[in-house]
Amino acid sequence: MEEIIFFRKVNYYETDQMKFVHHSNYIRYFEEARTYFLEEVGYPYHIIEEAKIYSPVLKAEAEYKKSLTFGDEIYIKPKLTYFNGVRMNLSYEIYNACDNVLVCTGKTEHCFLNDNGKVVSLKKCDPEMYEAFLACVVE
Amino acid sequence: MEEIIFFRKVNYYETDQMKFVHHSNYIRYFEEARTYFLEEVGYPYHIIEEAKIYSPVLKAEAEYKKSLTFGDEIYIKPKLTYFNGVRMNLSYEIYNACDNVLVCTGKTEHCFLNDNGKVVSLKKCDPEMYEAFLACVVE
Amino acid sequence: MEEIIFFRKVNYYETDQMKFVHHSNYIRYFEEARTYFLEEVGYPYHIIEEAKIYSPVLKAEAEYKKSLTFGDEIYIKPKLTYFNGVRMNLSYEIYNACDNVLVCTGKTEHCFLNDNGKVVSLKKCDPEMYEAFLACVVE
Amino acid sequence: MEEIIFFRKVNYYETDQMKFVHHSNYIRYFEEARTYFLEEVGYPYHIIEEAKIYSPVLKAEAEYKKSLTFGDEIYIKPKLTYFNGVRMNLSYEIYNACDNVLVCTGKTEHCFLNDNGKVVSLKKCDPEMYEAFLACVVE
Repeated sequence: MEEIIFFRKVNYYETDQMKFVHHSNYIRYFEEARTYFLEEVGYPYHIIEEAKIYSPVLKAEAEYKKSLTFGDEIYIKPKLTYFNGVRMNLSYEIYNACDNVLVCTGKTEHCFLNDNGKVVSLKKCDPEMYEAFLACVVE
Repeated sequence: MEEIIFFRKVNYYETDQMKFVHHSNYIRYFEEARTYFLEEVGYPYHIIEEAKIYSPVLKAEAEYKKSLTFGDEIYIKPKLTYFNGVRMNLSYEIYNACDNVLVCTGKTEHCFLNDNGKVVSLKKCDPEMYEAFLACVVE
Repeated sequence: MEEIIFFRKVNYYETDQMKFVHHSNYIRYFEEARTYFLEEVGYPYHIIEEAKIYSPVLKAEAEYKKSLTFGDEIYIKPKLTYFNGVRMNLSYEIYNACDNVLVCTGKTEHCFLNDNGKVVSLKKCDPEMYEAFLACVVE
Repeated sequence: MEEIIFFRKVNYYETDQMKFVHHSNYIRYFEEARTYFLEEVGYPYHIIEEAKIYSPVLKAEAEYKKSLTFGDEIYIKPKLTYFNGVRMNLSYEIYNACDNVLVCTGKTEHCFLNDNGKVVSLKKCDPEMYEAFLACVVE
């Protein structure tokens, strides 16, 4: 599988009084990259939603290595690091596009819920989606 | 009717790189004050929602007079300036609590929708709520 | 001058429990479009900042005509509607890219400050920038 | 030391289209609780800033156990779990005030910087603050 890379620019309103991007916004950048990842692997959000499957965040973490400032162009490499139909983990690396320096790494953990909020296994409730995600897992 | 006053403090993550509160956050402060206003007049959000009535924002505006910084204590005076059962306008004044200086004024305009997204008149669909809001209107 | 058009997609974290984009985020979309506008006319933020000129928002308003949902592709047309060296007004039109329907209009008003927070006229303190902005004004 | 407890209510604009608080906002709640903690132990932000000391976030993580919805009253217990003058770790527990159920846990890691962005030890550059923080550490 080709590497999936999501580009975006830092917005003014994402900075704080330290003149850097506020740390909470990286969690939002991860979500943008995850959304893009799902699109790229053929399961954009509206397809998942039509299948009445929801995937809440169980855990999120970020490690900040370098700061980002307004106007910085960044790219994010989201990866599916674990998937068993019931749980799904992604990792993220955010790079500053001007020098390719790694500025932040992170992880999110997810499960799958049906319409009634019950935990489900994709293997059972959507085998096709299950196979698609399984094929994306990298170590 | 007694004046309704909503207090809160400026959060760090609401500042931007100019070291002041980002202007978009005042629109959120207005919403907090509006929520508090509805509670105070006996119609907290969950009561309105149980009546299957929704009140989207049609228009919002803010005029910034002074800046606010992290840690500032502020108070907001929300007022119902217009209400006819179909439309509802509120005004807001934000004051810095340390010197009682007016830092921002604003307005929002709202209508009422039912469960199907149709515009409704509170006078017809909830006369009691209609009377309650009517009694709060100030010029 | 060619029309300046800024594209972006609606993010998941910009929605609220009504399942639409929260109204405060349109103010942030305006800022993104304004940033793009300044880049396109040759005065990206860092150039303005290097000239020690700051341009705070004095007033912002938005009128919401249609709702936006997660994943919607939108485009924004920012326009410089007034400029006299001391004050600058912009207008914004947000369109849903799927049907070209106008979903939101808005305005922002700005002044210019120097390093000491004093109001300045661009005509005096940066005639080149003044001429560049003046050439962009549309009715 | 008495337990420090920070109260607040969930705002409407913090929800997302799942009708729950968006996961990125818990990171902001942690910051609010941290700010309150520093105030309570005698070192509010402006005092730290006057000492020309900055404390960026090196790492942040959250584990989501239950969802929160608009209007929920919550309380957060921030704790200083590690401090050696150079590094500082805090943990957070967020509870729903209506049933005292733990809804989220989290951690943040911080260092200390001087005015020039250099890492400093509080033990050397501000022994009084060092002793104050040291006295707050709990396992």
